[in-house]
Amino acid sequence: MTVLTKRELKKRQNEAVALFRRAGIVVTKAERLQIEAADFGLGQYEQTGLGVLVYVNTERCCAKELAMLPRQTCPEHRHPPISRANPGKEETFRCRWGTVYLYVPGKKAARPRARPPKGCEKWYTVWHETVLRPGDQYTLMPDTLHWFQAGHRGAVVSEFSTRSLDEKDIFTDPEIARITKVVG
Amino acid sequence: MTVLTKRELKKRQNEAVALFRRAGIVVTKAERLQIEAADFGLGQYEQTGLGVLVYVNTERCCAKELAMLPRQTCPEHRHPPISRANPGKEETFRCRWGTVYLYVPGKKAARPRARPPKGCEKWYTVWHETVLRPGDQYTLMPDTLHWFQAGHRGAVVSEFSTRSLDEKDIFTDPEIARITKVVG
Repeated sequence: MTVLTKRELKKRQNEAVALFRRAGIVVTKAERLQIEAADFGLGQYEQTGLGVLVYVNTERCCAKELAMLPRQTCPEHRHPPISRANPGKEETFRCRWGTVYLYVPGKKAARPRARPPKGCEKWYTVWHETVLRPGDQYTLMPDTLHWFQAGHRGAVVSEFSTRSLDEKDIFTDPEIARITKVVG
Repeated sequence: MTVLTKRELKKRQNEAVALFRRAGIVVTKAERLQIEAADFGLGQYEQTGLGVLVYVNTERCCAKELAMLPRQTCPEHRHPPISRANPGKEETFRCRWGTVYLYVPGKKAARPRARPPKGCEKWYTVWHETVLRPGDQYTLMPDTLHWFQAGHRGAVVSEFSTRSLDEKDIFTDPEIARITKVVG
């Protein structure tokens, strides 16, 4: 687990709010302080990270706004079955601003537009590419491996899903820990 | 059930897209044609109606964008239990642009900011008021009576919910039919 100072967190929250603003998304003052700067335990937020604002996450459904810096990557993972009643998280990504390259199982793109973060190439195993531009969306069924990267200007993505249980996510890279600790 | 001509539908779709644009929301050409102009069977869309774009509606979750004309009302209704496994639709409304006055059971507002559509006053029975401005949101548990009205400029509202089964909704006004037929 990596740690983040309060000052760093504030910087990341401000960056996320600036991206949301470009997408026309209004965030309250209280929400600004709730934005999570997820670095997936790798300590290289600009390379592998995600600004996350959870709007709602109940037993049954969840909505989030994701802010991505230029070329920032959300690393490969899947949402496994949780119980008999819960086959795992199903999610839809809708691009609001910028460009997102999304990868899922299937035919490998001949020339993928995204590159895995340096040194982590072997933890990226699915290469069927979908390019999402504003207004484009993609629905992922539970337990589907996926990863995504923002284009050169960054991106804002809305996520609509069933309940989010981040701590249950399974990442291809065993070094990854989903929960970032904030200190200081 | 009221009917809507294709020309009227197109006009309503264009109005909705113009509202979405004000909220910074990008809609694809294909989605533009999927926007529903719900008049709730009353044939007075500008008074009682809703422009609805369904982004996704699976067995488990749903996301929509709602476009409301100035002072337009979504009439009082609730989402009843559907089965043992489905206690009814749970939904979160998030205001993206404009103002929305939302009414649910509870202490009646001393001076409600919205007025029910003329002639329909008796079908509006819950009066606990919440004012939603951009960035504000409200989560409704299943089977809760509610209605809402846009402010004088109109409104754009994102709805995040469990599966949407509009035909199961129960409206206080028995004249209301949720499904609008398009002809011509």
